[in-house]
Amino acid sequence: MTEPADPKQILLTPGPLTTAPTTREAMLRDWGSRDGAFIEMTARVRARLAALANGSEIHVCVPVQGSGTFAVEATIGTLVPRDRGRALVLVNGAYGKRIVRICQIIGRSHIVHETAEDTPPAAGDVAARLADDATITHVVLVHCETTSGLLNPLAEIAAVTRTAGRKLIVDAMSSFGALPLDLSDITAEAVVASANKCLEGAPGLGFAIIEKQALAAAAGNAHALSLDLADQHAYFERTGQWRFTPPTHVLAALDAALDAHEAEGGVAARGARYTANCRVLVDGLRALGFETFLPDALQAPIIVTVRMPVDPKFDFQALYDRLNRQGIVLYPGAVTQEKSFRIGCIGQVFEDDMRRTLAAIADALAEMGVARDGLRPAA
Amino acid sequence: MTEPADPKQILLTPGPLTTAPTTREAMLRDWGSRDGAFIEMTARVRARLAALANGSEIHVCVPVQGSGTFAVEATIGTLVPRDRGRALVLVNGAYGKRIVRICQIIGRSHIVHETAEDTPPAAGDVAARLADDATITHVVLVHCETTSGLLNPLAEIAAVTRTAGRKLIVDAMSSFGALPLDLSDITAEAVVASANKCLEGAPGLGFAIIEKQALAAAAGNAHALSLDLADQHAYFERTGQWRFTPPTHVLAALDAALDAHEAEGGVAARGARYTANCRVLVDGLRALGFETFLPDALQAPIIVTVRMPVDPKFDFQALYDRLNRQGIVLYPGAVTQEKSFRIGCIGQVFEDDMRRTLAAIADALAEMGVARDGLRPAA
Repeated sequence: MTEPADPKQILLTPGPLTTAPTTREAMLRDWGSRDGAFIEMTARVRARLAALANGSEIHVCVPVQGSGTFAVEATIGTLVPRDRGRALVLVNGAYGKRIVRICQIIGRSHIVHETAEDTPPAAGDVAARLADDATITHVVLVHCETTSGLLNPLAEIAAVTRTAGRKLIVDAMSSFGALPLDLSDITAEAVVASANKCLEGAPGLGFAIIEKQALAAAAGNAHALSLDLADQHAYFERTGQWRFTPPTHVLAALDAALDAHEAEGGVAARGARYTANCRVLVDGLRALGFETFLPDALQAPIIVTVRMPVDPKFDFQALYDRLNRQGIVLYPGAVTQEKSFRIGCIGQVFEDDMRRTLAAIADALAEMGVARDGLRPAA
Repeated sequence: MTEPADPKQILLTPGPLTTAPTTREAMLRDWGSRDGAFIEMTARVRARLAALANGSEIHVCVPVQGSGTFAVEATIGTLVPRDRGRALVLVNGAYGKRIVRICQIIGRSHIVHETAEDTPPAAGDVAARLADDATITHVVLVHCETTSGLLNPLAEIAAVTRTAGRKLIVDAMSSFGALPLDLSDITAEAVVASANKCLEGAPGLGFAIIEKQALAAAAGNAHALSLDLADQHAYFERTGQWRFTPPTHVLAALDAALDAHEAEGGVAARGARYTANCRVLVDGLRALGFETFLPDALQAPIIVTVRMPVDPKFDFQALYDRLNRQGIVLYPGAVTQEKSFRIGCIGQVFEDDMRRTLAAIADALAEMGVARDGLRPAA
């Protein structure tokens, strides 16, 4: 009943994405999760992740089983105090909204500062919200809003948050490992990300890089045993082990993916490759007649939102299916302001994959009989 | 920095355990998690898991990212009502105690019925607790308590729970797929297990087989967004998709592991193999002079607790290290009543692996100079 293994998937999605063969092959070995060799691997991966954010001094990396959302929920539940905490959540897409939903469900006091899906929050506005409400303890920012592909102004928001004496939690899910995030430059209580985005690991674990002091103060604060990062941190300190069965193969894949990340040249090189992918993709889409949702200045080199063409002959499902048969997987749109679809730039994909994708799209358009002018979105 | 892949690990642990090469090889392909092929695989795996418990009629399988504990916490948080719920937790080991801790942390009213680590709860006592306290809504039972290896009396507890008109939640983590559990015979609101125990998949996801009616009634009850199985179920109904990034490779491994389970002959054949492993192991240990913690009548064919020998020449760490160098991983003890260590019978291990392990133990004993009489535990 199993599908035949075919590693040649070009996943142009925001993750799970295309991984390297060496990353997948690292999953061919079983590990005893309480054995010394696995404890060593856990320590190594945690140190490498913290080092990627230059967070080795006062921060520590705490991984958690599950998806990125599990890690975000775990971080907020662990760090925002049950009683006297209050989060200012900056929202301009689905991931910001999801953080609001988490706060509602787990009962953390919060207010929302929302801007349009193509508009970053202005640091001055955030400073004003903080000045207005002394009870706000935390600002929560999504670094790259995968909904649209927009890059939010992390440095500016971090600066006003620090100036106001509040704590910053950064959801860096789709930027970590490809866009610079240096904890000696910006002040953040926690940065949250996952194995299967720009680090190009397999999905199954997330992590947060957290101030040790904050973890020490957070004992007993979390809303869930499984998602209690302070308890997991204390257990790491005591035993070096995960509290509950870790995804051993996925951790081994991440360790191998970090080797590849290092060999490629680290954050700068990975970011440069994605930027080149994004440039080829955006230029090629525009040459075909498509319009992108975001102006270039706001576009992170992670995922591109493409406005849905107006021509009734254009059929996104037919385009999706046609590329899918060639092993190329596109992604549906997510912005609510207008109809769109998305194409990712991340994972083990290169400029040639982008060109191949553009050629496949051009073929599909020709087959559909869509005119170049028809690719303009509805006004 | 990655350890060389070596698939020949004999993990005599309660999971993560030794998996089949075909299971690990299923992780060599990437999957788009919102793509049709992956949606199909998700539906297939969910149906196969429910069918293993004969639960296809009124139950549905809801998987969740993370370890078995994530699935147990998700099930209790989703199903035990926040306000008018009250759980009677049957405890005779660490996993029962963990359920109590979950109830404490997530704020679910509960009482504990605790017996010694070598003593199953008596159905009559449970019936009496239920008769005494009409506010109890749920009984929570650990099927096989991995702490000791003890098999709890599921059918009897299920019968008294049903007679008393209460709901039963079964933590079948280390028994599911090897010991019979037929939801047309026993009445249970939910059965919780994980991919990486007797199903011999890779770690990274758990699941619960839950009454559909209970899920419908549980909307909004969960304490955590990530662990809300009612919300995940509703999303499956609407889209066939996971709400949040699933461990795609781990799900593919489980699909392959279910192929192997079926090819072996299903639950009966897998249980028979583990029973044979357990018989060879227990007989061999006794022949060497060891004593097991549990009498045979209470021993599940999952993991064997061995009493720590009294001879000061016996050094468990030395035994562990020696076997580890041969690729055989033992497991530390967990019962609190006395010192012990554990040897698992589950995973892709066979009677010959048990004999090889026994021979390696015999060699280690000879090298330590431990006398046969010295293997008796302290009185």
